[in-house]
This record gives sequence, C-alpha cells and structure tokens, in this order.
Amino acid sequence: MASDNASPATSGHVRPEIDVCALTALLDGEYAEVRDLVRANLTTHASVLDDADELGVDAFRERVREIVVDMAATGQTGMGFPRAHGGGGDVGASIAAFETLAFGDLSVLVKVGVQFGLFGGAILHLGTERHHDAYLPDLVTGRLMGCFAMTETGHGSNVQALGTVARYDAASQEFVITTQGDQARKDYIGNAARHAELAVVFAQLDVGGTSQGVHAFVVPVRAGGEPAPGVRIEDDGRKMGLNGVDNGRLWFDGVRVPREALLNRFADVTSEGVYTSPIENPNRRFFTMLGTLVQGRVSVGGAGVNVAKVALTIATKYAVRRRQFEATADAEEQLLLDYGLHQRRLLPLIARTYALHFAQDVVRTQLHDVFSGAEDDPHARRRLESRAAGTKALGTWHATRVVQECREACGGAGYLAVNRFAALKSDSDVFTTFEGDNHVLLQLVAKGLLTDHASEFEDLDQLGMVRYVTGLALETIIEKTSAHKLLERVRDLLPGGDAWDREAGLLDSEYQLAMVRYREEHMLAGVARRLKRGIDQKRDPGAVFSQVQDHVIALAHAHVERLVLEAFVDRVRAQPEGGNKVALGLLCDLFALSTIEADRAWFMEHGRLTVQRSKAISREVNDLCRRIRPLAVDLVDAWGIPPEMLRAPDLVG
Amino acid sequence: MASDNASPATSGHVRPEIDVCALTALLDGEYAEVRDLVRANLTTHASVLDDADELGVDAFRERVREIVVDMAATGQTGMGFPRAHGGGGDVGASIAAFETLAFGDLSVLVKVGVQFGLFGGAILHLGTERHHDAYLPDLVTGRLMGCFAMTETGHGSNVQALGTVARYDAASQEFVITTQGDQARKDYIGNAARHAELAVVFAQLDVGGTSQGVHAFVVPVRAGGEPAPGVRIEDDGRKMGLNGVDNGRLWFDGVRVPREALLNRFADVTSEGVYTSPIENPNRRFFTMLGTLVQGRVSVGGAGVNVAKVALTIATKYAVRRRQFEATADAEEQLLLDYGLHQRRLLPLIARTYALHFAQDVVRTQLHDVFSGAEDDPHARRRLESRAAGTKALGTWHATRVVQECREACGGAGYLAVNRFAALKSDSDVFTTFEGDNHVLLQLVAKGLLTDHASEFEDLDQLGMVRYVTGLALETIIEKTSAHKLLERVRDLLPGGDAWDREAGLLDSEYQLAMVRYREEHMLAGVARRLKRGIDQKRDPGAVFSQVQDHVIALAHAHVERLVLEAFVDRVRAQPEGGNKVALGLLCDLFALSTIEADRAWFMEHGRLTVQRSKAISREVNDLCRRIRPLAVDLVDAWGIPPEMLRAPDLVG
Repeated sequence: MASDNASPATSGHVRPEIDVCALTALLDGEYAEVRDLVRANLTTHASVLDDADELGVDAFRERVREIVVDMAATGQTGMGFPRAHGGGGDVGASIAAFETLAFGDLSVLVKVGVQFGLFGGAILHLGTERHHDAYLPDLVTGRLMGCFAMTETGHGSNVQALGTVARYDAASQEFVITTQGDQARKDYIGNAARHAELAVVFAQLDVGGTSQGVHAFVVPVRAGGEPAPGVRIEDDGRKMGLNGVDNGRLWFDGVRVPREALLNRFADVTSEGVYTSPIENPNRRFFTMLGTLVQGRVSVGGAGVNVAKVALTIATKYAVRRRQFEATADAEEQLLLDYGLHQRRLLPLIARTYALHFAQDVVRTQLHDVFSGAEDDPHARRRLESRAAGTKALGTWHATRVVQECREACGGAGYLAVNRFAALKSDSDVFTTFEGDNHVLLQLVAKGLLTDHASEFEDLDQLGMVRYVTGLALETIIEKTSAHKLLERVRDLLPGGDAWDREAGLLDSEYQLAMVRYREEHMLAGVARRLKRGIDQKRDPGAVFSQVQDHVIALAHAHVERLVLEAFVDRVRAQPEGGNKVALGLLCDLFALSTIEADRAWFMEHGRLTVQRSKAISREVNDLCRRIRPLAVDLVDAWGIPPEMLRAPDLVG
Repeated sequence: MASDNASPATSGHVRPEIDVCALTALLDGEYAEVRDLVRANLTTHASVLDDADELGVDAFRERVREIVVDMAATGQTGMGFPRAHGGGGDVGASIAAFETLAFGDLSVLVKVGVQFGLFGGAILHLGTERHHDAYLPDLVTGRLMGCFAMTETGHGSNVQALGTVARYDAASQEFVITTQGDQARKDYIGNAARHAELAVVFAQLDVGGTSQGVHAFVVPVRAGGEPAPGVRIEDDGRKMGLNGVDNGRLWFDGVRVPREALLNRFADVTSEGVYTSPIENPNRRFFTMLGTLVQGRVSVGGAGVNVAKVALTIATKYAVRRRQFEATADAEEQLLLDYGLHQRRLLPLIARTYALHFAQDVVRTQLHDVFSGAEDDPHARRRLESRAAGTKALGTWHATRVVQECREACGGAGYLAVNRFAALKSDSDVFTTFEGDNHVLLQLVAKGLLTDHASEFEDLDQLGMVRYVTGLALETIIEKTSAHKLLERVRDLLPGGDAWDREAGLLDSEYQLAMVRYREEHMLAGVARRLKRGIDQKRDPGAVFSQVQDHVIALAHAHVERLVLEAFVDRVRAQPEGGNKVALGLLCDLFALSTIEADRAWFMEHGRLTVQRSKAISREVNDLCRRIRPLAVDLVDAWGIPPEMLRAPDLVG
C-alpha cells in the first residue's frame, strides 16, 4: 500500500504503533460476540487438547461428543438454524463461530461440522417443513445425531456418478435403498461409526424404471446403539488425525423408508409414483441441490485460515524468545526472528493469513446475503459457489503449508505433542481433501471463469472439466471468449500504457492489482486458446484436457489470489488513519509482492516484469520483512487466540 | 540425457522396455545382500505396522525394542562395528542396511539409529580400546542399550555452547557431571526415557578451573530400570510420531564417573589432572570429534529418500487403479495417472527420488572410504562432511514434500491410518530437524564453499555462519574469492561462448550441467560480494549475516543440486545400452529440467534463460512426463519395497 511511510529505504521509517484491541475488533468484525462466546467455550473445554493425546479412540470420541453437546447448549453451534426451531437465525454468525472453533481441538470442530453443517444443513436446505419440524429441534441441541452419507469409495469427487440406488415402490409407497456393489459403499462418513441415528443418504432415484439422478433421503441407520435392519456399518478405524470423529462406512441392503423420507424441496415423488420438480433441467436440479451445501466449503476454508493462525502464533512467540548462535564472541545469541531467513519463513505467511482472513470476510458475507435472501439470484449463487471453492482451496493449502513451516521453525520442540503442532498437522491435513478435493475445486473455479463468457452453459456439470471440454458446448464458449477479445481486456488493465508497469512504484497497490489482474486475464485467454486448438484438431477430449490441466489450475489459482488481494486492499483503504492502518498496509504490500515474487518467472515470461524489477521486488520483500519484524507479536496477538489453545508451555512460555 | 530416442516430439518415441530385476540390482548395488536381509527382516516383523496403530505408547516401545534386538541377532544392525567385537566390519553396508530399514516402521529405524549409530558410533569413534572392550560386544547385540546425550533444551544446533559441565576432581580421579541450569538439561534424547543404561554425555570439560571445551563421557544413567543416583530422567511424552522411541530428558546433579569414563581418542586427562590432546587447536579438536558422527547424517538422508519411495509407490499404484470422471458421456472414467496434472504431481518426484538415490550412493561411498581408511585425509573428510550435510537436508525435505503430495494424491483414502501415509508423515517429519536442522546444515555447506577458497580457515567453527562473518577471517576469505575471479570461472563453464546456452539441446546433459554449475558459481560470487560489502561498510556482523542469509541458503541448495545431477548423469552414462538406460535417461532429463524449471526465475534474472527457452523447458517437462507415464509402475517396482510394507490394501490392492 502506498501509505504514509512508503519510502523505499528501511531506515528512517517510523515504526507504527499497533492498537491490538482495535485490530482484534476489526478482525472479529460484526461477529465479535459469537466469536467471544466460542473463545469462552474453548477455554472451558481446554482440557480436550490433553485428552486428544491421552484418551484411547473410543473414550476420546465420547469426550468429543460431550463437548459438542455442551457447546450446542450455549447456542454456539445452532446459529445457522431458524429461530423457530431453536437456532440463531444468522448464517454469517454460524460460519464465524465455526471459524473461531478452529483455534481449538479439530475433532470438536469437525464433529460440529458434520452434525450441524452437513447433516443439519441437508435437512434444512434440502428438506421441507415436515423434515424441519421432525428433526431440527433435536438436531440443534445435539440430542439427535446424524451423518451425511454422500461420498462413496468408488466416487470421491464425482458425486453425480455415485452408485447407491433408491427405487420407489409405489405399492408400499416406500423407497428401497440399496448399495450396488462394494464401490458404492458410503465411506469416510463422519458420525457413522458410532453416534449417528439418522443418515442423509444420497442415491440415484429410480421411479418406475427411470433414473432421475441423485437425490437425498433420510434413513435411520442406528437404533439403541445397534445398526438398523438392512444397514451394515464398519468403522474406518484410526486415521492420521481427527480421531475424535467416528468416521465409518455404510452399506444398505434393500432398506425401506417411507415416501416422506425424500428431502423434497427441489423434487418429489407423488404417492402414485410420479416424479415432479420445479426445476426442469436435471443437471441444473442436481447442482441446485449441491449448491445449498456451499456453506461447508466456506466453513472449512475459514477454519484452515484459523489453524494457520494458531501455528503462526506459537512459532512467532517462540522466535522472539529463542536465541541461537552468537553474533560475536562476546554477544548474546541472536533471537531467531532477527535472522533474515527466519523473517522470510514466517512473516510472508502472517501477511498471507491476514489476506485470507479478509477474503474469508467477503465470502462469508456473500454466503450470508444469499442464504438470508438479501441477495439471492442465480448470478449471486454462482459467484458464491466459485468463490467458496477457491478460498477453500487456498485457505486449506495455506494451513498445511503454514503448520509444516512453523513446526520446522520450532525445531525438535515442535515435534512434541504437548506443543500442538502434532495435532494441528495431523488433524488439518485432510482439509485439503474433504468438502471437495482442492484440485477439483480449482477446476470448478476455472470452469466458472470460462462459462462467465457464455452464460447459457451454466447448467453444464460443475464437477470435472473433462466432460466440459467434450463436444459442442466447448466450441461455442471458445468463440465467445476468443483470445483476441481477452487480450483487449488485458490491455485495458494497464492504465498507463505498455510501459506503465515498468515505472509504477512497487508499493503502489494499483500496480500490484494490475499485475495480478493481468496474470489472470492472460491465463484465461491462454486456456481458452489451448482448448480451442484441441477441438479444432479434433483430438480426444480427454487428452486435450490432460494437457491443459496445469494451465487450468494455474488460472484458477491466479483468479483466487486476485480476489484475495482485492479484499485486502479494500479493507486497508477503508481503515481510519493510524498505526493499525500503516501496519495493515505493510502486510498488504508484503502479501502482494511476495505473491508476485513467487510467480515472477511467469511475469517475466509474459513481458510484465523486467529482470531489474524482479530483483527489486525480492529486495522490497526483504525490506518489508525487516519493517514488519518489530510488529510481529502484536500482529499475532490481534488474532485473539485464547492462551489455553496455544498450549506449548516451553515455546510461548 | 541425449540418448537414443531424444527427439523433441512425443509421438514416434519407442517406449523402452524396463528390466525391473536388473534395475533393482543396479539400485541395490554392492549391498544387495544386506538389503535383502533387511527386506526379509522387515517382512518377518511386518505386524509392527499394525502395532504402531494399536498398541499404547508403553507397549509399543517394548515391541520396538524387541524387534531391534531380534534384528541385531541377524547381523543387520552391527555391520559398521569391527568384526573383533561382533560387527560386520563394513561401514558402507551398515548405511545401506539403515537406508533399507526406512521402508518399514520408522520407530524401529530411529531406535536402531540411536542405539547403533549414535550411542554405538560415539563409543566406537570417540572411545579407545578400553571402551570398545567394555561396551561393544553387548552393545552390538542390543543387550546393552544406551543413549547419546548431546542436545540441550537451550542449545539445539549450537553444540559448542552447551551448558552441562564435567569437572575433573584430581583427588578422587573422577569427573563430576552437573547440569548447569534448566536450559542445560539434555532433551529429546532417544532411549533415555526407558531403555538406556548408559549415556554418552557431552559436557564442557573443566580441568583445574580451565575449560577445555566439549568432550564426551560414558555415564551410567539407569540400573535395574531405575535412574542412577544423581540422575533425573523425564519422559518427553507423546510426540507427533516415532512413539516407539522413548525420548526423554536428563539432568545430572554432581554425578561422579571414573577418569576412564572420558571417551579419550582425541583428548585425555592424566590422573594428575593434566589435559592432553594430539590436536592442539581447540576448534579443530571439537570439529574432529563431531566429524566422526557424520554417519548419522548420511544415514538419515538415505532414510529420507527411501521414505519417499514408499509414499510414491503407494500413490503410483493407486493412480493406475483409480478412475475419476468420464472423458466422454459413454467412456469409462479416466485413470488418475492419465491426467496431466497428476503426472506433473508424481513423476518429477519419482525422477528426483532416483536422482537423490544415486547421490546417496556417492556420499555413502565417500563415507565408507574415509572410515575404512581407503581415502582418509582432511580434504576427503571436509568433502564428506559437506556432502553429508547437503544430501541430508535435500533428502529429508524431499521426504516431507513427497509424503504430503502423495497423501493428497490418494484423497480421503490416504488419510486412513491403514494406508501408511499417517505413519510416514508423522514419523518422518522430524527428519528435517534431527541430526542437524536442515537450514543450519545448508549454512555449513555454504561455509565450506567459501572456505574452499581459503583453506587456512578450515578450523573455523563449522556451525553457524554468524561467527564466521565476524572479524578478520572473513575479510581474507573475501579477498581470495573475489567476485572477479569467480565470474571468470563462471565463463569457463560455458563451452560454446555466451550464446551457447541459447542453442544447446534441452536434452543435452552437458547443457543441463552447465546451467546448474553456472547457477552455483554465480551465487557463490554473489554471497562473497555481499559479505565483503557489509564488512567494508563496517556494519554489525549479525545484521550483515541476517541480510545475506537467504542467499547463503540458496547457494548451498544450488551446490547440492549440482552434485545430485552430476551423480545421476554419471550413473546413466555408465549403464550398458538398453531399455533401462533409456528409462533412466528420461528420468535424468526430467529431474534436470524440472530442477531448472523450478528456479527458472533465477536463470532469467541472470541472463541464462530467454523467455522462449523457459517456456520450452516447461513444455519439455510435460512431454517427459507423458513419456515416463507408461514406465511409472516399473520404476517404482524396481525399488524393491516388500509388498507387506505398502500395507494400503485398498490403494495398491
């Protein structure tokens, strides 16, 4: 940010004074109250961090369940449900609560997500009044536990192809649910191995011999602790982490449920066996149903960002206590964070964490607006779904990367379980996979960018670019997004003409934004051109896609990073003058320039960065690290992580 | 490699036929026999992989101890000890055995490393006949367990600064060992919490009030299962992984050991209290002692490479079974490994694993030659120590990166403990830290590169560049390594003049080598220039070092990658013509070009890569991935990992 003290040299800069409480208030935003409730609940149940190490799997699962039920009693976990059914009636607050919960034990977090987000969310969004009345009151308190049985062994990310079948038997007015072959077993289902009484089961609906695609049904899977008749349950066993969540497998052998068990908001079957739906196009219907589940992705992305905060807080506090090697024979050993390399390792990650936090604010607000009806139209939904997919991918990869870097930055001490990294690492690892594999999600983002130029194709399958590149639809899209047009748009992005970006100040946020916007538009044009060439040459669509796939992922990544930078810049600009604004400006510059630096090869390859300027950016990143170094502790303190969650007595002491 | 079929286009290439058995024989090399012994032992004890999940910490520690003792009885773990004391008398074989052991449970591996490498190695290399006779026979069988008490809480990597004191009491002819303050407690000591009876304790030797620096002593720490008098032992508790190893903390409160307890190969104290040493310079003495422990680094680096092999084998086998998304409406879903992105994720990692394997062969051979006396002079030792530090850092970071990528590439299934990634990830995580933090090791490598130009400074402390940049010594070095001279050498590296590297074939290994050699020399000149500038400006040495540290690390990284590529190219050239040579040539090209690609920004910034050529390298990497794709299963099978070690029944099935 070009802020008050943006002169290029380090020396002479005035160190901004950070008002930590005010910064926490800014970060907590409108949900400060529910976040503080969660902080209090986390502190009350802080002993769960020890339990996770010390209890066996069975006992720990029970402990986690108890905590989830206790937390539910405080209202924390039900914020997203209607007040009429015991909830808080505030979708945004429910996401904020979930994000904050990620400061603590992550089995508790994921159990909350399974029970109230996935299971509860499916009942709420796919069901109608009869389901709401029957299940929501007990579900919101945690008295009634359920699971969300979508994923199958044979089909992880390709939900539309799943193999479980629900056949309508008009004679008995029942659905008969059957697992067709072992690849169709439901797998990795949270709450299934132990606690769920009900399951929301996704199955291919068969009415009178016609398949109507994937629909969801409420199916009792357990009664009095025993599997229901026709239901087989297997425990997934020990996992890398999250062992307080009872993941399991489910098989259904002709399990009968009444006609009313169909979650019928978007489709129904009459007692006579006639299939009806207000949404005519089956693809659109499927993605409308799936779209209601977007809050899971928004939740997990935000949780990833907060996991990163915990790791960075511990590593930063350690780095300002720990000394290593003397500078001179008589001197004290240097503090870790005074080493340039250590600054390089931690501070850009702190900057990126702030950036992702503000980007999360945007997607949470969009979610709230769509689901509260404030702004709910197809365009807003599409925008939300794309953004949720993208921030989930970047937020969870960020968590994995940050936890690893912070563990290594704490040396052998970081390896002891008592110092939290063990749990953070093993528990958060799967975030990159669940609620949608990150690579698949980025493909979805890229597809959205292409279809934005050809809106009539919005109904195409949204999972899997492969089918997307098949056949006619693609050709039309390519015409609409001709490389020519896109390159015109790219040029429009450079306000001062072609030479502008060689002269602008590196700390000018308009320059930084122009760079990441240019990258995105250029990549979009490149992907479109490559796809079109493949089609023109009548090559095998699978082979075409395979060859363009890395460009597709890079495009989506560039798109999301642009959104993240825009969110950060907007927030900094909106701040009142003062130390906090200066500090956030430095962080925003560090995020922008370290992002450009990380991809500087691309910018050089595409004529947007000279060799001299590329080197200047690296120097500026180092300089920003030195300027942010004295602010590091305030910046992590502002995240407001309860000290009990940091554990790590020897590291943060 | 410019091999038989190195034409640039993919199509028309003949797929080489791999002889898997012959490739395994090549990889196993001269140590095939001991490697097969380890494979057999691993298979015998395969149930330990389940035990690691199922047993509690106490029971698992006992189980691991039993296995270690059982393996010792087969001769596997004693290869490095003299035949006269029950060993195998072959240092190289002992490293090869250790590497192979990394296919299995890593607690077993690390317990073997602690007992026979660290504890046994210290007795062997720092002790003399009296210690060998007293301890080696029982140590080699595992009847006598010991630990290696070097690391202290307050001083992880800076061993020379440790705080434990051993004062010589001439009256009683004893050393009195005392932990001075809590920062001097010995920490993370393997075997200390439960099984060690003896400890090799590193302490500051005080004779008659004069400190003689760090020396090692044999100290009984436990008898009949109870701590010895004056010794306090604390359990480090649960760790992220390696919970079959009993790490602990040790405090000594005036513990008395006889004069003969000093491991006196390099220094002794007479009964009258006179300190003697054949090595006059205290710094040189300290690093001579430490240097004998280099085999630990060689071992861990090789283990890291083999951990990567296990993860890649599972992920590759999964990727040729698992289908995901249809290419066209009627088609079967595509195999994961037919996706370009999936190839990009796995195949360069397979290539780098091969490269690191061959580099490990070189450092193992150097170790063997030095320790068997075949080539033991100060130059050979320095070369070995630098190379061991560098390959350890790259090999263990590679393991961390590969395990993470492979887990994600196996989706949710990769998260289940039964599929091995959980253990691989949590157990191998600390490899980047123990036996020397990787960043500290790379600084040691860089320092070696600078001192090679000023050999009289070989006695400088070898840990910590900080003190290195302090004072006079540096100035002299800088003069000897003037940027001018180095740049002359750089020019000599380009055989065809300045334009040569713009015209050479990308698959010409001379081109690839010239690129990585140029990078290293240029970085060396750059670091020297920056250090000199700091000295000339009389700036604070700590600040100078802090600013140059990222360049120092980059230099060391470039140096080690050059060594790795040279090792790979040499091995490919030495192969007889045939399918295996062609396949290895493809892998070598993929390693070389993906290494250059990863740092292409640097090459562009330094005028050694045009934009066009940079893009051509990325295309060539993609093309090589497509050509290697059909060979992937053979390439991982050739590593010869016992199927029982892969576990993962649902993934490799």
